[in-house]
Amino acid sequence: MLRRSINSIVIIANRNYTNKPCSRFSNMAQIIDGKGIAQDIRSQLAKELKEFVAAGNPTPHLTAVIVGEDPASEKYVANKMTACREVGISSETRRLPASTTQEELLALIDQLNKDNRVNGVLVQLPVPEHINERTICNAVHVDKDVDGFNELNIGRLALDMEGIIPATPLGVKRLLEYTNIETLGRNAVVVGRSKNVSLPMAILLHSDGKYATKALDATVTICHRYTPPKELARHCRQADIIVVAVGKPGLITKDMIKPGACVIDVGINRIKDEKTGKFKLVGDVDFDEVRQVAGHITPVPGGVGPMTVAMLMQNTIQAAKKQHCAKLSARNE
Amino acid sequence: MLRRSINSIVIIANRNYTNKPCSRFSNMAQIIDGKGIAQDIRSQLAKELKEFVAAGNPTPHLTAVIVGEDPASEKYVANKMTACREVGISSETRRLPASTTQEELLALIDQLNKDNRVNGVLVQLPVPEHINERTICNAVHVDKDVDGFNELNIGRLALDMEGIIPATPLGVKRLLEYTNIETLGRNAVVVGRSKNVSLPMAILLHSDGKYATKALDATVTICHRYTPPKELARHCRQADIIVVAVGKPGLITKDMIKPGACVIDVGINRIKDEKTGKFKLVGDVDFDEVRQVAGHITPVPGGVGPMTVAMLMQNTIQAAKKQHCAKLSARNE
Repeated sequence: MLRRSINSIVIIANRNYTNKPCSRFSNMAQIIDGKGIAQDIRSQLAKELKEFVAAGNPTPHLTAVIVGEDPASEKYVANKMTACREVGISSETRRLPASTTQEELLALIDQLNKDNRVNGVLVQLPVPEHINERTICNAVHVDKDVDGFNELNIGRLALDMEGIIPATPLGVKRLLEYTNIETLGRNAVVVGRSKNVSLPMAILLHSDGKYATKALDATVTICHRYTPPKELARHCRQADIIVVAVGKPGLITKDMIKPGACVIDVGINRIKDEKTGKFKLVGDVDFDEVRQVAGHITPVPGGVGPMTVAMLMQNTIQAAKKQHCAKLSARNE
Repeated sequence: MLRRSINSIVIIANRNYTNKPCSRFSNMAQIIDGKGIAQDIRSQLAKELKEFVAAGNPTPHLTAVIVGEDPASEKYVANKMTACREVGISSETRRLPASTTQEELLALIDQLNKDNRVNGVLVQLPVPEHINERTICNAVHVDKDVDGFNELNIGRLALDMEGIIPATPLGVKRLLEYTNIETLGRNAVVVGRSKNVSLPMAILLHSDGKYATKALDATVTICHRYTPPKELARHCRQADIIVVAVGKPGLITKDMIKPGACVIDVGINRIKDEKTGKFKLVGDVDFDEVRQVAGHITPVPGGVGPMTVAMLMQNTIQAAKKQHCAKLSARNE
């Protein structure tokens, strides 16, 4: 049933992207090096972009918008801007005060939508509570919506059509492809049902690999807050692939893992380390325990996070290319 | 966890919509009388429509389009037109020859989209092979798309937003509500991954009941052609609710059913009855066997089919009301 070729971008597939199990712990899971894979993708994208610009095209441009002063949002956006610089994407961050009205934010988005120099628009979430997040996501032009959160991009993804796919689930898909995790007909469990990560993830996992999204053809179970803990454990134990995106440290424990399963941890939680008293980032998976049973596991940090940023870069370059083609064909008409 | 009130349309919930198990076969599943439930919904809609028209509004109008001469399509559309007459919806069927080009069909859709007298547009599927079905579905105006197949309506459904929901999965949801099948936190399995039935069904089953789609909060597993038969059987045996929409007679057998489960059969297959030599309609479920184990089961015909037609009527009336409100507010601006 080997019918899906790895995406053409994977020109480096013979390099080893999982840390080999240490001989002393030969049962331990291979750690999927998201940071390393993302770095390779970024290098590849930098090359692609250089060629695009060398052919006489304008440098792709991404505008990020932050409303209010959330330190986590500032950090996420700073990471994205750094990645832009590295890849060669021109970028800027527009900062609006927390008191910005929805109408003011919509007016800025409208202006960016109409600005031909801007190829990608990203409104960092969350927005302040007086602003409707969904209205904002839908306001970003479908072709500049590099986050893939617009209702039309979600509809296209659901229908296996070409469109912009949310960066995190797209990044998880790439991780699975890079590490040659078989998905066709395998059992996958998505824990969580958020619209930005879990739902598009479940769609990418179960849909048909022969259409535009090149989805993964797995049997998919979606678990969430109303799934009883016993049932969650049972579904997970049957899974060859688990993607967890909930925001609950330690939710996924060793006893919930089928030996050899691939565990992808999208959670990012800031908790106090009891030993050192310092804050640290952890995922939703009890990493130290689960790695003793799983076949593959992503670390937090250094797993899915860097892939999200890399996929955002990819989405921006693809958006620029599509807009460029549209302009060309309009000129030739 | 009883937190979701049954939809207000269910004013007849104290009537019995399942055939009581016959005393001789007390273990047998209650048969969900889709035909009877659909008839009640249609009566309710007729009343709602009468009030709408009595208030001075124009009679809602549905235009169906058939391209080519498919006897099954003719029959489906005839059923819909009959339902329209019964409910009081004005309707017409536009018949185009099989040789119609995609451009000609798109031109007719565009004309219907712009026609203020038309509230709902339905292109009966399948269309001939030289026409792209997806292009056609996306061409119907989002507010007149009473089938709910437009990319924007699918996106809105996926995002738990208000929109038009495809009639068959919406009908299944109503059947579950009418028969008081508990769904919150229960295991549901959707067999199939079609975009018109299975995907919206999986979304309606797993999504959050507190948003616009009033979804069902179940834990959902999506099985499909690449799910190995053994795994399909295992997933089904764990399910409290099974919805099967594949088109394979006898796919779901007795040994795959958890005692007491609710089995919803969306399949419609025309097969030759070996005893009589005549053709008959059957679903994807081995009805006679499965009813010995299941708690509830829908028959074919007379289960989901009539609900699809009733939900189409509901979608048309809702579309007319929404368009009417939009016109009113435009006039008052």
